[in-house]
Amino acid sequence: MIAEVITIGDELLRGEIIDSNKSYLSERLLEIDVHTRFHCSVLDDPADMTDAFLRAAERADVVLVSGGLGPTRDDLTIEVLAKTFGRELEQHEPSRVALRAFFDRVGREMSPSNEKQTYFPVGCEVLTNPVGTAPGCMLEGGGAVFFCMPGVPSELYRMMVEQVVPRVAARAGTVGSGFVRSAILRTFGIGESSLEDELKDIAQDEHVQLGFRTTFPDNFLRPVARGATEAEAAAHLEHACQAIEKRLGALIYGRDDESMEATIGRLLGERGETIAVAESCTGGMLGERITSVAGSSAWFLGGVQAYANRVKEQMLGVPASLLAEHGAVSEPVARAMAEGARARVGSTWALSTTGISGPDGGTEEKPVGTVWIACAGPEGTEAHEFVFPFDRQRNRQVTVQMAFDWLRRTLLEIPREVPRWLNLKDQDGR
Amino acid sequence: MIAEVITIGDELLRGEIIDSNKSYLSERLLEIDVHTRFHCSVLDDPADMTDAFLRAAERADVVLVSGGLGPTRDDLTIEVLAKTFGRELEQHEPSRVALRAFFDRVGREMSPSNEKQTYFPVGCEVLTNPVGTAPGCMLEGGGAVFFCMPGVPSELYRMMVEQVVPRVAARAGTVGSGFVRSAILRTFGIGESSLEDELKDIAQDEHVQLGFRTTFPDNFLRPVARGATEAEAAAHLEHACQAIEKRLGALIYGRDDESMEATIGRLLGERGETIAVAESCTGGMLGERITSVAGSSAWFLGGVQAYANRVKEQMLGVPASLLAEHGAVSEPVARAMAEGARARVGSTWALSTTGISGPDGGTEEKPVGTVWIACAGPEGTEAHEFVFPFDRQRNRQVTVQMAFDWLRRTLLEIPREVPRWLNLKDQDGR
Repeated sequence: MIAEVITIGDELLRGEIIDSNKSYLSERLLEIDVHTRFHCSVLDDPADMTDAFLRAAERADVVLVSGGLGPTRDDLTIEVLAKTFGRELEQHEPSRVALRAFFDRVGREMSPSNEKQTYFPVGCEVLTNPVGTAPGCMLEGGGAVFFCMPGVPSELYRMMVEQVVPRVAARAGTVGSGFVRSAILRTFGIGESSLEDELKDIAQDEHVQLGFRTTFPDNFLRPVARGATEAEAAAHLEHACQAIEKRLGALIYGRDDESMEATIGRLLGERGETIAVAESCTGGMLGERITSVAGSSAWFLGGVQAYANRVKEQMLGVPASLLAEHGAVSEPVARAMAEGARARVGSTWALSTTGISGPDGGTEEKPVGTVWIACAGPEGTEAHEFVFPFDRQRNRQVTVQMAFDWLRRTLLEIPREVPRWLNLKDQDGR
Repeated sequence: MIAEVITIGDELLRGEIIDSNKSYLSERLLEIDVHTRFHCSVLDDPADMTDAFLRAAERADVVLVSGGLGPTRDDLTIEVLAKTFGRELEQHEPSRVALRAFFDRVGREMSPSNEKQTYFPVGCEVLTNPVGTAPGCMLEGGGAVFFCMPGVPSELYRMMVEQVVPRVAARAGTVGSGFVRSAILRTFGIGESSLEDELKDIAQDEHVQLGFRTTFPDNFLRPVARGATEAEAAAHLEHACQAIEKRLGALIYGRDDESMEATIGRLLGERGETIAVAESCTGGMLGERITSVAGSSAWFLGGVQAYANRVKEQMLGVPASLLAEHGAVSEPVARAMAEGARARVGSTWALSTTGISGPDGGTEEKPVGTVWIACAGPEGTEAHEFVFPFDRQRNRQVTVQMAFDWLRRTLLEIPREVPRWLNLKDQDGR
């Protein structure tokens, strides 16, 4: 079974948008052992779209189309697809009702241009969109089956996983394809080429293909296992995951959707412990990340965004003398911030950050990227200095991940390890 | 002049990599008024590559090819391109010398597979690669001109800017193409279809093409103007931007790279005023966003992540009686949080958020998505209730943008306007 992915939109061809939908869709297809052979993108232009549809029908068995389902004039996918394969359009009553209900729910008028989104080619199967106004559809044409989905990633992802993948898998099954199972192992603190070197033998397993993906500041591993049965594929996958986990140990912090903050939340929740934060250079990012996890009120109490020195003093009790003597970006201040947050909020643990994110504010002694992180807990407080080499936003992101990873290792009672790819002044071990 | 971009590599079709090269190349082309009409990606497969090259030659004038120039067995671009257009390969002596010098410089042996990278089709122009081992080339074939570049982004970027753009521009110049200027106008509070309705006439201007892009929770407008000279293109662009700004007024909060938080920072900075935050449901996102702007220490003092009620009481002085009587998600608590932050931090302004982001925690009276936002300032405190219909993360994102937009409108002394696409209980106007 050959797959083609077509994405539609002028903005793609102008290069305004990095088109991540194509890789998303191909990844999901690969999980059911369907291989994408062609990617293409065309303008919101009926002639080019027609041409792309005809060509895809000729060379592929399944064609995923993303974009062009919106309410505006330049959203032409359904109309052009119908015309390409000689179908009339008719209004799909359940979609009209659902769309009207959607607008009622959000308290908006339904405009005539939205009405357009309820018309579909005769004979297609409409795919509902629970998170947006644009339903999708499945249509057979020219010997291939087309799946049209919205271009908005969150809508696309849901429609792909819930409605398209099962339909494609069912069709792929009929052509006798094998079963595929995959996982994501999330690592922090090791570079991609080191990962590749360490896992060379595992990557060459005949049943498992090992992919790598960098999602700053993490590196994700993606083992994809194949088998003649579902159970066989799952067994190959588990075997590979265990081998990788044994090799990498605590460098892996989570699996599949488990983010670093979810891992920490789970660990704290299991222990019935709580956390507070005291953030200077990260400005709120620690708390924002922790509270992105549903149910985080069970372990997150709160904290202080202590950006100005006055706030460090008044809200966290950092002595003015420490700030005067050592400066805000220093070990004593990082320690006092974490201890102040822990005491005032009354949590089991507290993390603090204070640093110079850049692009300005660096000195010879404390260059841009210098960050002190402290972790206060029942056994006392530890602090560590880092010098990160990235830009402002990345310095902040890696600071947060580093602080979380540190807490994770502390909770798991495994040694702290500083990322192998960081330029560090090791002030540790006292 | 019609352009096509072809990227080559199995990893692209597996979806392992988000292919940002295509958008990069198209953006660079657009700057010299060369429009990309087709993007496609193919496997490292000679038949598919040949097909893609022939098709591109037929429908495009200039074809940018990225990838497949490496030393390994599956790097076939040059070989297949030569064969497609009936050319022999010959060793390019300057490339051989340069490659050997490269390996000497980095202290590595030059392998026989690297030798392959010095062979090019007869009659092509070789493009040197100062930062990698793979030279590129320019070749005329089938009525189009092909530029082959490495897939490694850093190498691609440099070769594109230094060697390909000037050559394409020279060719585009000969066909009398004009100049292009574009801008991004950032709006918040109006839906995409309403935008299109409002700007229908402006979108039809003969010199300006108007694009739309949704970046939740905002909608961006992208006018692209053309002119015979640089000045003429700039004048058309300015004319269009002014017409759009006049029509949309305060719905536009920023231009080009100016984010909402940058706009607020600029406004506060101009007035010499400061801000504090008190965050419950957003957990730190207000502060994180504000401090993402370099130099934000001039206007951001800090705040409190008051997630637990105890923290609202102790760190912000919210009376326990208010929490008991009205609950944490209520107008009195939102007001007390903002006022507490303003008083304790000592800022000109303070924003507070308290709400139920979901997916759990909703009640009949206060469903998931209910948020109170308050803004405390020199003239007093105002609070407003919203009921957002999104998922947890989006409810938090729109809460933050709404709070910022409110402060922006307050600072600009323009009426607050609630997004037209939100379901709101209007508790305002006291």
